Amino acid sequence: MKINGTDYRTIWRTADGRVEIIDQTVLPFEFRTVHLGGMIAARDAIRDMLVRGAPLVGATAAYGFALAMAEDPTDQNMSSASKILFDARPTAVNLGWALERMNTALAPMQPAARAGAAFALAAQICDEDVGLCSSMGDHGLPLIKALSAQKSGAPVNILTHCNAGWLATVDWGTAIAPIYKAFNAGLDIHVWVDETRPRNQGAFLTAYELGQHGVPHTVITDNSGGHLMQHGLVDICIVGTDRTTWTGDVCNKIGTYLKALAAHDNGIPFYVCAPSPSIDFRMDDGINEVPIEIRDPREVSHISGRLASGEVAEVRLIPDGSEARNDAFDVTPSRYISGLITERGIVAANRDAIGAMFPERVEN
Amino acid sequence: MKINGTDYRTIWRTADGRVEIIDQTVLPFEFRTVHLGGMIAARDAIRDMLVRGAPLVGATAAYGFALAMAEDPTDQNMSSASKILFDARPTAVNLGWALERMNTALAPMQPAARAGAAFALAAQICDEDVGLCSSMGDHGLPLIKALSAQKSGAPVNILTHCNAGWLATVDWGTAIAPIYKAFNAGLDIHVWVDETRPRNQGAFLTAYELGQHGVPHTVITDNSGGHLMQHGLVDICIVGTDRTTWTGDVCNKIGTYLKALAAHDNGIPFYVCAPSPSIDFRMDDGINEVPIEIRDPREVSHISGRLASGEVAEVRLIPDGSEARNDAFDVTPSRYISGLITERGIVAANRDAIGAMFPERVEN
Repeated sequence: MKINGTDYRTIWRTADGRVEIIDQTVLPFEFRTVHLGGMIAARDAIRDMLVRGAPLVGATAAYGFALAMAEDPTDQNMSSASKILFDARPTAVNLGWALERMNTALAPMQPAARAGAAFALAAQICDEDVGLCSSMGDHGLPLIKALSAQKSGAPVNILTHCNAGWLATVDWGTAIAPIYKAFNAGLDIHVWVDETRPRNQGAFLTAYELGQHGVPHTVITDNSGGHLMQHGLVDICIVGTDRTTWTGDVCNKIGTYLKALAAHDNGIPFYVCAPSPSIDFRMDDGINEVPIEIRDPREVSHISGRLASGEVAEVRLIPDGSEARNDAFDVTPSRYISGLITERGIVAANRDAIGAMFPERVEN
Repeated sequence: MKINGTDYRTIWRTADGRVEIIDQTVLPFEFRTVHLGGMIAARDAIRDMLVRGAPLVGATAAYGFALAMAEDPTDQNMSSASKILFDARPTAVNLGWALERMNTALAPMQPAARAGAAFALAAQICDEDVGLCSSMGDHGLPLIKALSAQKSGAPVNILTHCNAGWLATVDWGTAIAPIYKAFNAGLDIHVWVDETRPRNQGAFLTAYELGQHGVPHTVITDNSGGHLMQHGLVDICIVGTDRTTWTGDVCNKIGTYLKALAAHDNGIPFYVCAPSPSIDFRMDDGINEVPIEIRDPREVSHISGRLASGEVAEVRLIPDGSEARNDAFDVTPSRYISGLITERGIVAANRDAIGAMFPERVEN
């Protein structure tokens, strides 16, 4: 999608073969690209969240693995690189999925052939992700179209949490893909953007990418969605997911669960864009099985923003002597999910429906 | 309660008759008291939230009215001052209640007698509020005691939203009064403090006053409570209220509703400390009848905190070109409230129970 009028993906190879990314930690106040010089740089980019969003984390891990093969294509380094990259963000299932795919493809090869094949496979993983996201957009579009028709063309108000936009993927986004498709189709839409504390991915990234694309939107605090729903100001919620169990429990950015409860209480549809790589067919019980990162409390106690001077600075938000805690994700039980928007279509959030749509993923 | 070891109320008269308050907009990074030089200064303190919290807003309006009587005790100024003070924060029922009480008491008096009587009545309103809060603390204490016994003395985890502590009242607080009583009684407790965007009254004020009193607490984002509840880390929620209908619908700081939904979904008791002046016997339907302030979007788009240099500064949190919206309160339907803790005891959140506890307030 476009930034300042130029088309970008979130990760790409330059003409001379360098792997580059957008440093998302400095958005929305600065646009800066970063060269990933090697596997450790890719690991750092994942760990320090220069890249984030499950699909983009997977794509970056794939390129990180390819960079590792360019450095040392031995079996030993395959194993070591896999471990180092995996440990950077354990919650995102795409990370493990991408690494497994690289390992499966490269293990049988001669070491000398691995680097080239790895870069080709990483590029393929990226292209596939773009295809997945575009398909989810196509499958989600009719939901918005139907609401627009119900409202006789009055603006459809869509609430989203965190950033599941194109900046979280390689292009298009997951939850925002149907929104871009609806906007491009000329539907009148408006997006409520949860700011998504503590890292403010909604205010910083979703608002930024929607604004760059021209989509009408309003940033709200994470506290506001329930009230807006009570007053008829939300027609549909669409969010992303970091990991969805094949029973339909949705792990996503902390606070998603609260919005799902409010949507349920007010009879508002709550959809999750779940590309199949984010569906975990080994887990049955989201609340008890998905490991939840507890991140640095400093993300809660401090926040960065732009001073009146134009400089970006970090400010402390809690008194001296107070502690903070930073659980990064929560799990929304399947009973609160209206449906999962996948690349193959919309599916009910339960094991039978998900298994029927992705039979090849079900382990016997 | 104590600040830096000295006992304070949130509003007081000095030995020479000046009315002073704590400027709560500069907490927790600076402690500063402010002299209210006249009625307009009192209005500004309410409007600009140097004082906040329904009971303290009422007390400040009472002193503001007294200051107006010292300036000009005519009938005309009584009417004018009432209007000016009332318009400063229309949602807080205590404001109208305090002004009505001042008017009723002073209207029959000779103008010359009004200033003295007004200051005496304002002081009485303050003392009564301290009594109310202390009583709510006493009535809420057994809830925490029972949980502590159930947990064999292991820490009772209490979640609260916004600041309904002593800084929101004249002393003791509403929602935090039972917590201070429990702490003073030697019970092992721990408080989860919602930061409460956009104004961060939880992180700035609740954490500050709990810390000054020595109560163990942890600041969390507003997104976190549901996840903590799913994992058994919250034993009870206690919040305040700006206005509760006599049918039991609770208007409180935006985001309260989301926590009530999560408490209900996880079988966790959700109590509201509602001093009777905050109960509105003229309203039946909280969602449709309580007027909700939509405040300056700048409170969402910007936040103040302390720079590494020690200076307090405001930073922008949303991209240029994006808009924000700032609904200040929401309404939690009575069905999600386990009970109201009032100065007369705990009452079910419905018209019959509330009417039976406060029969003199029911209009025939």
